[in-house]
Amino acid sequence: MPVPGPGYSITVRLEAPPSASAAGDLTSAVGRVGGVITAFDVVESHTDRIVVDITCNALSANHAKDITGALGALPGVRVRKVSDRTFLVHLGGKIEVTSKVALRNRDDLSRAYTPGVARICQAIAENPDDARRLTVKRNTVAVVTDGSAVLGLGNIGPAAALPVMEGKAALFKKFAGVDAWPVCLDTQDTEEIIRAVELIAPVYGGINLEDIAAPRCFEIEARLREKLDIPVFHDDQHGTAIVVIAALRNALRVVGKKMQDCRIVVCGTGAAGSAIIRLLLQKNPADVIAVDIDGVVHTGRDNLDDNLRWVAEHTNAEGRTGTLHEAMVGADVFIGVSAPNLIGAEQVASMAADPIVFALANPDPEIDPMEAQRHAAVVATGRSDFPNQINNVLAFPGVFRGLLDAHAHTITDAMLVAAANAIADVVDGERLNASFIVPSVFDAAVAPAVAEAVRRAAVGEG
Amino acid sequence: MPVPGPGYSITVRLEAPPSASAAGDLTSAVGRVGGVITAFDVVESHTDRIVVDITCNALSANHAKDITGALGALPGVRVRKVSDRTFLVHLGGKIEVTSKVALRNRDDLSRAYTPGVARICQAIAENPDDARRLTVKRNTVAVVTDGSAVLGLGNIGPAAALPVMEGKAALFKKFAGVDAWPVCLDTQDTEEIIRAVELIAPVYGGINLEDIAAPRCFEIEARLREKLDIPVFHDDQHGTAIVVIAALRNALRVVGKKMQDCRIVVCGTGAAGSAIIRLLLQKNPADVIAVDIDGVVHTGRDNLDDNLRWVAEHTNAEGRTGTLHEAMVGADVFIGVSAPNLIGAEQVASMAADPIVFALANPDPEIDPMEAQRHAAVVATGRSDFPNQINNVLAFPGVFRGLLDAHAHTITDAMLVAAANAIADVVDGERLNASFIVPSVFDAAVAPAVAEAVRRAAVGEG
Repeated sequence: MPVPGPGYSITVRLEAPPSASAAGDLTSAVGRVGGVITAFDVVESHTDRIVVDITCNALSANHAKDITGALGALPGVRVRKVSDRTFLVHLGGKIEVTSKVALRNRDDLSRAYTPGVARICQAIAENPDDARRLTVKRNTVAVVTDGSAVLGLGNIGPAAALPVMEGKAALFKKFAGVDAWPVCLDTQDTEEIIRAVELIAPVYGGINLEDIAAPRCFEIEARLREKLDIPVFHDDQHGTAIVVIAALRNALRVVGKKMQDCRIVVCGTGAAGSAIIRLLLQKNPADVIAVDIDGVVHTGRDNLDDNLRWVAEHTNAEGRTGTLHEAMVGADVFIGVSAPNLIGAEQVASMAADPIVFALANPDPEIDPMEAQRHAAVVATGRSDFPNQINNVLAFPGVFRGLLDAHAHTITDAMLVAAANAIADVVDGERLNASFIVPSVFDAAVAPAVAEAVRRAAVGEG
Repeated sequence: MPVPGPGYSITVRLEAPPSASAAGDLTSAVGRVGGVITAFDVVESHTDRIVVDITCNALSANHAKDITGALGALPGVRVRKVSDRTFLVHLGGKIEVTSKVALRNRDDLSRAYTPGVARICQAIAENPDDARRLTVKRNTVAVVTDGSAVLGLGNIGPAAALPVMEGKAALFKKFAGVDAWPVCLDTQDTEEIIRAVELIAPVYGGINLEDIAAPRCFEIEARLREKLDIPVFHDDQHGTAIVVIAALRNALRVVGKKMQDCRIVVCGTGAAGSAIIRLLLQKNPADVIAVDIDGVVHTGRDNLDDNLRWVAEHTNAEGRTGTLHEAMVGADVFIGVSAPNLIGAEQVASMAADPIVFALANPDPEIDPMEAQRHAAVVATGRSDFPNQINNVLAFPGVFRGLLDAHAHTITDAMLVAAANAIADVVDGERLNASFIVPSVFDAAVAPAVAEAVRRAAVGEG
């Protein structure tokens, strides 16, 4: 069951009687309806009343109303105002553009702008590679979306997707010093998206595609990789795949199995599932069984699109057919990137010894992780309130740091594998256990390790 | 004659003998070849030699070589390294993207990113106007170019134009707190430019078109104004026109003439000239005579394009024909945004009493300003080494500050006139004279005054 978290945190300003029991009455009222108080601040004190800010975590908008209602129902209490801290954080946006150069006087202006800047322009016109040295291209990534598959919210459009892209840009800077800029495109036409990214590309050293629906995202990524001379990365595919492969590498260390002995069921063949399968195949597992809403993917199935046909041809060596539950019998690893509550404890029990279960559907996983733990040796989810969170933040900042530092023109599977290995290796043998197969997203060692691994791989490939 | 300026500033590191006369020998050598020393730093001192950094302004790359050569030719002097300070300023680009929110721990992450951000996305999906409150759209402008008419350099393409757009973004922040982002488009096709700007628009509260060649720029601006619900401003047109009208307003105060009594010759009918004419007409001068490479623009001329036809129909009330020199006879004001050295002192002498001459062609004006001063009452140029510099920096930061603060959906001629009046009025009666008709670009009062005037005009128009 979800617990109230800081993603839904409110601050209630209220007037209360100045009695000795006031604080106790207020906190009890919040507790009775399930709110979790994180701060209690008296902002004014008078002989006849106190003014208090109560900050607490809630579950939802309705839950926040319940909390406010419970406080307002107390004798002598008047609620003045309710602020939503998540909204407060977002007022005016989360990122800004700042100048790295001084502009104090005419000399500064003459160098950073006209007339001095003309020489920089001429240098780049004569030698286009100089753009990577003398402009923001050196360190800048476009975070591109069409708003068609945003978080668990679906197709909410480009404007409503912007807060996610801004957050992503903030994370790029925080974790890897990368300048990232949101590009929210007002179209969901594949050709228009491809052309728009081509047109804006001169400013950027890399493209991070984000929250673009499958199967459109596959074609956009593939075509842009052909057209552009900068790396194109689709975070929902490659970011997720990197972290899953990293987590699986460590989970296998925990249970003492080898990749080449494992049969792995991947449930979900959208952006994430397909990329996970492709990257898994680089690691040569015994077999991968892909499953979608129509059951096990095999070459004999009708209506396979290009993506599913590729998957069918490269997985399922034994030509299995059937349901997800059938596929899981005897499998070593389950990786779900699909939909809530597709499997139960009995399916986990039907797997091989020491099964590994990654139930990554967001916000509600394929199986309640507490339930999965009854039979699984290692469980991971996408949720922050459970151990082993598979979080793309572990991958994308370091990956682009490495690509930019290498002046990479492309990104290869070898670089993705190098990134996955680097993430896994941050967890040393002494810290590794079933509840700690990936490092914390706040572990400052992760991004530099990933960056260095990607840079080496990129330089190695020339 | 141009003088060495900070736009071309070099630092020469050299070894010299530790003699008492060393400093004098070095500075004399630079002076003999026309360099201007701005700093002399001894960075190392030994018994047998000193190591010195000599920073000096030069005219050009060849002049910088002359200076370095003159230093290296001195007895006992060895030049170690020559650094170009303008290039140093540009290393790695001039702007960066920074986070305005803290991302120290899980609570911060839960609010600024998942899961909390999902509620912000939903709020915008339900009420699109919330994007102006909860995202960077509130404060952000796209600086859009196709690189087709960059400074005096011409069609150098989008990558080589980027340093100018970065500089512009830095100025937007410095002077008006506006976040601006460079959008350098890899196309010079009118339809593609229009569509690309439409597609990226969700992130921005305004569009600043920049350095796009005429006549393409007119159609792009007009069509985007129809399509978008955010203001579209073409700095080469509207920014220049605002500052010219502001300067003219004050120049007329200096000579004691009224706009409605003046005949004004505008030489050049490109982006800047056409916009100047349109904005001048808002001020009801006695007449405007437009002149281009084929002479005076009149309705009887062949091959008028849409822009020139509009100009012909709205200017030249007396139906004049002939040359630029003929048009200038008896005129009160000359405004040149065309090409170098088109007029001489005799043309200025042929104008009405107390003529006003704005010779704005860059870098070399229509007439040497020293020559113009022989007969003109007021002279202005685009150059920073002469009084009365017509510089767009006076206009664009404040204009967009006002538009963003008003949540404006469009920009009108009334707002441009309000901006021009605000710039002019910063120069109070006590400071106004023939050498001070516009405020300094570093006058901190300008942008707030312009912003307030534009905001009022925008709110006034709803």
